[in-house]
Amino acid sequence: MKDTEQLTEVVSGSDVGMVIVMDGAAGPDELGRVRERLAAMGFDVHESAGAERTVLGAVGGNGGPVDPRELQVLPGVKEVLNLSKPYKLVSRSFRAEPTVIELDDVRIGGSEVVLMAGPCGVESEEQIHIVAEHVAKAGAKILRGGAFKPRSSPYSFQGLGGDGLRYLRAAAEANGLKTISEVMDPSQLELMSEYVDIFQVGARNMQNFALLKALGRQRRPVLLKRGLSATIEEWLMSAEYIMAGGNHAVILCERGIRTFERHSRNTFDISAFPIVKKLSHLPVIGDPSHAIGIRDKVAPLSRAAVAAGADGLIVEVHNTPEQALSDGPQSLFPEQFVTLVEQLRQIAPAIGRTVA
Amino acid sequence: MKDTEQLTEVVSGSDVGMVIVMDGAAGPDELGRVRERLAAMGFDVHESAGAERTVLGAVGGNGGPVDPRELQVLPGVKEVLNLSKPYKLVSRSFRAEPTVIELDDVRIGGSEVVLMAGPCGVESEEQIHIVAEHVAKAGAKILRGGAFKPRSSPYSFQGLGGDGLRYLRAAAEANGLKTISEVMDPSQLELMSEYVDIFQVGARNMQNFALLKALGRQRRPVLLKRGLSATIEEWLMSAEYIMAGGNHAVILCERGIRTFERHSRNTFDISAFPIVKKLSHLPVIGDPSHAIGIRDKVAPLSRAAVAAGADGLIVEVHNTPEQALSDGPQSLFPEQFVTLVEQLRQIAPAIGRTVA
Amino acid sequence: MKDTEQLTEVVSGSDVGMVIVMDGAAGPDELGRVRERLAAMGFDVHESAGAERTVLGAVGGNGGPVDPRELQVLPGVKEVLNLSKPYKLVSRSFRAEPTVIELDDVRIGGSEVVLMAGPCGVESEEQIHIVAEHVAKAGAKILRGGAFKPRSSPYSFQGLGGDGLRYLRAAAEANGLKTISEVMDPSQLELMSEYVDIFQVGARNMQNFALLKALGRQRRPVLLKRGLSATIEEWLMSAEYIMAGGNHAVILCERGIRTFERHSRNTFDISAFPIVKKLSHLPVIGDPSHAIGIRDKVAPLSRAAVAAGADGLIVEVHNTPEQALSDGPQSLFPEQFVTLVEQLRQIAPAIGRTVA
Amino acid sequence: MKDTEQLTEVVSGSDVGMVIVMDGAAGPDELGRVRERLAAMGFDVHESAGAERTVLGAVGGNGGPVDPRELQVLPGVKEVLNLSKPYKLVSRSFRAEPTVIELDDVRIGGSEVVLMAGPCGVESEEQIHIVAEHVAKAGAKILRGGAFKPRSSPYSFQGLGGDGLRYLRAAAEANGLKTISEVMDPSQLELMSEYVDIFQVGARNMQNFALLKALGRQRRPVLLKRGLSATIEEWLMSAEYIMAGGNHAVILCERGIRTFERHSRNTFDISAFPIVKKLSHLPVIGDPSHAIGIRDKVAPLSRAAVAAGADGLIVEVHNTPEQALSDGPQSLFPEQFVTLVEQLRQIAPAIGRTVA
Repeated sequence: MKDTEQLTEVVSGSDVGMVIVMDGAAGPDELGRVRERLAAMGFDVHESAGAERTVLGAVGGNGGPVDPRELQVLPGVKEVLNLSKPYKLVSRSFRAEPTVIELDDVRIGGSEVVLMAGPCGVESEEQIHIVAEHVAKAGAKILRGGAFKPRSSPYSFQGLGGDGLRYLRAAAEANGLKTISEVMDPSQLELMSEYVDIFQVGARNMQNFALLKALGRQRRPVLLKRGLSATIEEWLMSAEYIMAGGNHAVILCERGIRTFERHSRNTFDISAFPIVKKLSHLPVIGDPSHAIGIRDKVAPLSRAAVAAGADGLIVEVHNTPEQALSDGPQSLFPEQFVTLVEQLRQIAPAIGRTVA
Repeated sequence: MKDTEQLTEVVSGSDVGMVIVMDGAAGPDELGRVRERLAAMGFDVHESAGAERTVLGAVGGNGGPVDPRELQVLPGVKEVLNLSKPYKLVSRSFRAEPTVIELDDVRIGGSEVVLMAGPCGVESEEQIHIVAEHVAKAGAKILRGGAFKPRSSPYSFQGLGGDGLRYLRAAAEANGLKTISEVMDPSQLELMSEYVDIFQVGARNMQNFALLKALGRQRRPVLLKRGLSATIEEWLMSAEYIMAGGNHAVILCERGIRTFERHSRNTFDISAFPIVKKLSHLPVIGDPSHAIGIRDKVAPLSRAAVAAGADGLIVEVHNTPEQALSDGPQSLFPEQFVTLVEQLRQIAPAIGRTVA
Repeated sequence: MKDTEQLTEVVSGSDVGMVIVMDGAAGPDELGRVRERLAAMGFDVHESAGAERTVLGAVGGNGGPVDPRELQVLPGVKEVLNLSKPYKLVSRSFRAEPTVIELDDVRIGGSEVVLMAGPCGVESEEQIHIVAEHVAKAGAKILRGGAFKPRSSPYSFQGLGGDGLRYLRAAAEANGLKTISEVMDPSQLELMSEYVDIFQVGARNMQNFALLKALGRQRRPVLLKRGLSATIEEWLMSAEYIMAGGNHAVILCERGIRTFERHSRNTFDISAFPIVKKLSHLPVIGDPSHAIGIRDKVAPLSRAAVAAGADGLIVEVHNTPEQALSDGPQSLFPEQFVTLVEQLRQIAPAIGRTVA
Repeated sequence: MKDTEQLTEVVSGSDVGMVIVMDGAAGPDELGRVRERLAAMGFDVHESAGAERTVLGAVGGNGGPVDPRELQVLPGVKEVLNLSKPYKLVSRSFRAEPTVIELDDVRIGGSEVVLMAGPCGVESEEQIHIVAEHVAKAGAKILRGGAFKPRSSPYSFQGLGGDGLRYLRAAAEANGLKTISEVMDPSQLELMSEYVDIFQVGARNMQNFALLKALGRQRRPVLLKRGLSATIEEWLMSAEYIMAGGNHAVILCERGIRTFERHSRNTFDISAFPIVKKLSHLPVIGDPSHAIGIRDKVAPLSRAAVAAGADGLIVEVHNTPEQALSDGPQSLFPEQFVTLVEQLRQIAPAIGRTVA
């Protein structure tokens, strides 16, 4: 058939493109309207009239993202196929080499699997110091701990705020660790910048675009958690938001997606590791604690993530989980973390990696 | 079998096609291997080498279904787009007019919304007679009642079998109704054919291909429930299985899909009605009882289905739901069914339809 | 068994409570630790030692929300059942009568189904005036139109901001309409308060807790969209956040949830209407445009929502949808909206309601 | 049948129970009806009237499975909590020690991770011999290969039937392997018993109860795949069906569940391994090939499964995947399988296990 040839010729001129398959019964008027619409969107259109139906190839476009539904609703259109990906900067086509994010001697995205650990929330100066010492000794490089907590109930512990940040920083420095903490609102960025090496964006804020834009304008690395029901493509689009603002230091973090299964809090999407590695150059780590939500299954998921190619893990560890103000049930005891790290040290070499 | 032969002819004559987008870095060897593979699959291949990448258009094919992954895994391939639908006989392209299935004066798929009602399972001769009288008086045209019950627990009531079928038939005839009952295994078809006007395939058997093939070989209408996690495309494919066997009298039935929401047993996919109507010529009805699983919400969902364009409803009604051997909690009391039918009679005319 | 009696006695003292089922093999040490933990959480504990296992009933608590996992992880615990709902103010137990939100003579949650309509985004002064006139004439009471747009791509149209708000207000006043527009960040509240009668919270911000708190502190009504993967319980919890801040004027809005089905953008959860009506006194409306994402299916879903008991609809209408800067494909033409309203006027009386 | 009798005895002897929370406004009549219903179901009822509400505890029951909705629909009932699990024989409470299934010297569920490998379908005598030799040399103990293929399209390759079984058996024996193959219908059992050591039940047949019952009556081990949208509880219930028939040799197999994510064919539920291990004594293995559906991600998922505690893997391997009649794109090349097994040999010892 002649048409497909012409069609593909066109498409090949650009990464942005669409294929519009017309209905067999579509007449010249309908075809004309589709062509007009494509032209208005800035596309070059190449038509090929086959025996049974006409197919249009569209390339170029005015550079903006395209909503294929705009063509799908036109009379006479049977199907629209979008050849273009909505993201650019995050993609392997844009940058073939893996991005490595460096914080002094800590390298995220390199051959070493990097461990981030600590309590869900900073609860006191003493608590964070004890945990920091434990996790540093075990092999962690980055101390986690929330100061501003996103809680689904307005009646729950909401974090220590500025005090929490100071305690976190002091505990980290005393133990040679870097810090990571969650930011919930652009208004917190200035204060947090004094204490935090990596900004964490929680799952519920993955599409808080005001926040993503603000993070794109500053220069600290951002750990971007996948939303509870976000597709991998949407997750990468949110990373694109940050990168489009000028900040290319984005770390992706898989933390479980929502499914019908009720025995796990969320379903840890283990396939996300090899899939993201193929689509993007950005590092991707795993958060098994929030995925499974219960302590005794954190270790199996952590081992699985490393075996599947994760660049790191962020794990909740608490000195006295049974007294934690939040997420105690999913926090490891320090000695469980030690055992886990030993297991990871055995697993990582199977795929040519190391654990500190 | 002749039917399949004819069918295949249709398929191969049609516009089966794919677009293969090559990677920018793909060389002539990789291109060559893709072309070879397409040729082996019976496709005509049209190449167009653009500045950035080459795109191949493939048309024709040897008539069999195509697995696009076979091309996707080849080295140098970036993306594969499948232009062809896997089904033919169920599609609006194959038959533009809506299919109307006639059982004497009952017409499913016409302008009248057809009501099927009755208990989950036939429990006794008396019970089914009482219910039949109630639902016939209220306006139902078809009596439902299971004789072989699919139960997720091996310890639950499994149905009355042959006796149940006889009771069902007698109660229907005494009240001028047609019958519908669930078939679970090809071995039941012969016996059931004596008593049943429509064979019902349950959600859990939507892809029991041995059963679908057997139903394709006989000539009674089949009501095919959508599987708990079946896409609309897969559901249509299962209808295609029956039609490919030569039996074109298929009624589709939406009964709720599985999601993360826990307040409803299943999520009644109300969008399925307008979507199926556009893709296929087959009639589509709703089963609100199994979707929601609780009596007091059956009426709102029934009204919604009719308002969205359903060709009929299948509703569980029991004379004494609190004593039902199965699904009592989702069965309507007879007087609730009467009220519901009155509401439906007010709603249907809004879209040019009637309720008996 | 004696234990259950004691247990239930306890539970009945309060709405907050838990049942802890111990493992058959659990000994006195394990039991002791569970009792201690419950005591520390402020619960009164009632034990009942049966033949096979011990069951603990816990009532009271220190008033905060309880994480049942804290008990589930203790040694010897087999299962924990939470008897308490996490929300209070939104619940029917708190307020039996339906909440009616009044904006002059517009009453949301009363017997009249209220229609909100307008373009996705305000694109120009002229556009919003034309649309406002159309929808007012057709029967809408509230004009929708975005000034700040949440877009999943950083490269898409982001709204007209303050100018958009001014145009929206002027167009509404000229046609006797109220206004609704989306707020994305607490920093926008002050400006928006001058122009907007109802603040809309988008699905992606349903758990943006900083925003919810800010909305709880002001006094205009809030329309809260359900998140893409939010359970009904989480949605009600987000409403609780706003109400806990002192603002009781919350309107819930179902806009489709994410499932595996690919023929619809989202799955419009029609069951949410009767379910929410039973759990809460708040009004609940439907957004069919965002649920289905394609124009020709907006009408069937709108009719279904009203038939299922929705208190209103918010529908995208555009004078020239094919030129819309966003969501054109899901926007109705003005004449389609007129036809839809006529259908709704026929359907609403079936359940004792009216449409303006 | 004796087995079921014994089983039922177990069930009714045990701690089946429910907690019924009454509405605050419920009166004595409503309470009376709930008590009657519970009594009719064989429960002992214990009432406790508190200040705000009455709670009923129900223990005992007549031994059959209970549908909590039967109580939930009664007037005055606010909530019903089911304390009992629907399964017994599969549970860790029934049998604390892990079940090890032995086929001569192959032990499934022991400390060694068992590998099953082979093509999706047996395509020819030569093909299966070549693959068998490869996988045996690499370390597999069991040869997989379909003779009856469940295909979602009626136009696809449907398997070689009896010839396929003979080829499979011969190839296995020549290489010291056991065999596994899928059974789709009870009518195939007799023929297959001559050639097959383990019967495989596909995901689409997980709730084909006629098939499960037939498998319960025979004595060969059964590998039961999890349905595409089956909860872990339903999966265990299907295993219970087989065990209730008297056949206790059931191997569970996780093969991915359906979610909204489109980059993977299914979402491999890695959490299922530790969860099932805790709930049940049955062995559980992973099928990464069907989960991800594309070759280059089979190895990461296989490593993850072993790291998470899987008792084995079933992997598709084909000598010439690019020419496979089905599932070629997800089949490993023999040399990829060799590499994978080497990686697994490094990972297994981290959790005290070995790979052949």
